[in-house]
Amino acid sequence: MKSVKELGERRIIDIILKHLEPMPNMPIHFGDDVSAVDLGRGKLAVIKTDMLVSKTDVPPQMSLWQAARKAVVMNISDLVAKGVKPIALLASIGVPRGFNQKDIERIAAGLNAGAREYDAYILGGDTNEASDLVISCAAFGIGEKNRLMLRGGAKPGDIVAVTDFFGNTAAGLKILLKSLSAPSQLKKKLVDSVLMPRARLNEGFTLAQTGAVTSSIDSSDGLAWSLHEISVASNVGFILSNLPISEEAKKFANLHGLDAVELCLYGGEEYELVVTIKPRLWKTVSKKVSLIRIGRVTKEKTVMFKVGKKVFPIRAQGWEHFKTNLSNS
Amino acid sequence: MKSVKELGERRIIDIILKHLEPMPNMPIHFGDDVSAVDLGRGKLAVIKTDMLVSKTDVPPQMSLWQAARKAVVMNISDLVAKGVKPIALLASIGVPRGFNQKDIERIAAGLNAGAREYDAYILGGDTNEASDLVISCAAFGIGEKNRLMLRGGAKPGDIVAVTDFFGNTAAGLKILLKSLSAPSQLKKKLVDSVLMPRARLNEGFTLAQTGAVTSSIDSSDGLAWSLHEISVASNVGFILSNLPISEEAKKFANLHGLDAVELCLYGGEEYELVVTIKPRLWKTVSKKVSLIRIGRVTKEKTVMFKVGKKVFPIRAQGWEHFKTNLSNS
Repeated sequence: MKSVKELGERRIIDIILKHLEPMPNMPIHFGDDVSAVDLGRGKLAVIKTDMLVSKTDVPPQMSLWQAARKAVVMNISDLVAKGVKPIALLASIGVPRGFNQKDIERIAAGLNAGAREYDAYILGGDTNEASDLVISCAAFGIGEKNRLMLRGGAKPGDIVAVTDFFGNTAAGLKILLKSLSAPSQLKKKLVDSVLMPRARLNEGFTLAQTGAVTSSIDSSDGLAWSLHEISVASNVGFILSNLPISEEAKKFANLHGLDAVELCLYGGEEYELVVTIKPRLWKTVSKKVSLIRIGRVTKEKTVMFKVGKKVFPIRAQGWEHFKTNLSNS
Repeated sequence: MKSVKELGERRIIDIILKHLEPMPNMPIHFGDDVSAVDLGRGKLAVIKTDMLVSKTDVPPQMSLWQAARKAVVMNISDLVAKGVKPIALLASIGVPRGFNQKDIERIAAGLNAGAREYDAYILGGDTNEASDLVISCAAFGIGEKNRLMLRGGAKPGDIVAVTDFFGNTAAGLKILLKSLSAPSQLKKKLVDSVLMPRARLNEGFTLAQTGAVTSSIDSSDGLAWSLHEISVASNVGFILSNLPISEEAKKFANLHGLDAVELCLYGGEEYELVVTIKPRLWKTVSKKVSLIRIGRVTKEKTVMFKVGKKVFPIRAQGWEHFKTNLSNS
């Protein structure tokens, strides 16, 4: 019998989904970033839950305020990636016995700050005693059925683009967890990308309104993994011609003899959007939203990176609970 | 600085709520059993999240299937108590490292069974590594604004009633956790009340449609505590003339020299409804739903029990995380 460690998060989710009876006419299939219930008149109630557990999601340098804010942001990011504005959140909190009143206040203030940053509100929740700090948020928003950006619509020839450069969180985690050094300004930027993640609310909403996006995902499990997820859901592949490596990640990689490509592709905990766009609408879209074009959707179901005439495969690898640990990021 | 143990769950919730900016025109105030977002046309999106943590909510004899089912039922019960039918649920699961594939399958099957029992579906969720087994569900339903049964509407003179007799879970927990004995048939009934809790879906929905209910709560924190909650929210009190002690609790109390009144009032983990009803509609309502009339709402903000000419106070005591433990139930 396989242990959860051997299975890894993604196999566990597959096993769970196999045991769930699907709701008839489910507007969003199992395995997308969010779930939904049809409200009629072209509207959907869009819901999402994602759990933050201190021992796997919170580096020791992250404050309780930041951890609570992150628990909110990671849920909001999934709504945003579908083009849905968050309206309200609930938070279930598992609190270790050693916590005190001030700790609770920091968590509450972080939850509130995270929600208000995105014009949403925390409406309620639940507290429990637990061994780890656990913050499980549920996010709610109302989506337009024909404006939803799902994982499954990418078509060969579509342009693939992202909302920012990658690599900062992977570098930031190396500073936080492996004590790697960096000049103070660079260090601050890299560390901040981990401690204060940001969801792309305006970009997600604007992109959804253009009707040009054929698929979308947030990059919380890493750029490579996100591409593989869209590849599976859309039954397509990718060829990248332009890796969106951040200047900071390049500098940090140089400093420590690391591979910046690895930092860019196989990080995680970044909340950028990875989208595919109808080519004829690319110009219109890229005027409305600042996007970095990184490649094309292909018919071949492989995820590749092209440098000059050489082509390299991009591995289906990224952040995964049970298999990945904060300490081996 | 007070520890969370000294504060207790209810003070912790107060502290959290103080740090949350309330949403303008929030259809349901902080501190009720559920939260809601206005959908227009008299409809509300009703949401709830409640977290089950193995070490405080799961007796050792409860199977993983039962624990997962319970995590669903406890969320559904809160919707039901407001007169709202559950439509969909999400589940965030924190899984200990020692679990294997079979354990995951049992949890998934329990989640699905819990939802389908109430004609709802699990739409998705999230898994994480955690020290304890943690199952945080979020439930979603659509409510009618003018049919919602909140905590705050009880009026002096209203009749207070419950959907079943109390005391079985308190007795069942003593069997499970303190190894108290009971004849096999009695034992089965008492233990089952803990392992297989049931939410009052039809009763809740039917009661809401009558328009006769002035306040409602589920009794998951115990009968006494539920009355005190309505007392605070409605700014009223109660005088009970008829304690709804179950026959099984009486038998069990006799057997062990326990006080059946204590088992009835100060248990918890029962998912009955405690409602107040407009007196002139009592007859109509009690024909539609099987209810046990237990007393009256009073202007005096005390919760009392009358036996003959004597009046005893009912303490504001019940199940509370951080303060109550499974092991001292």
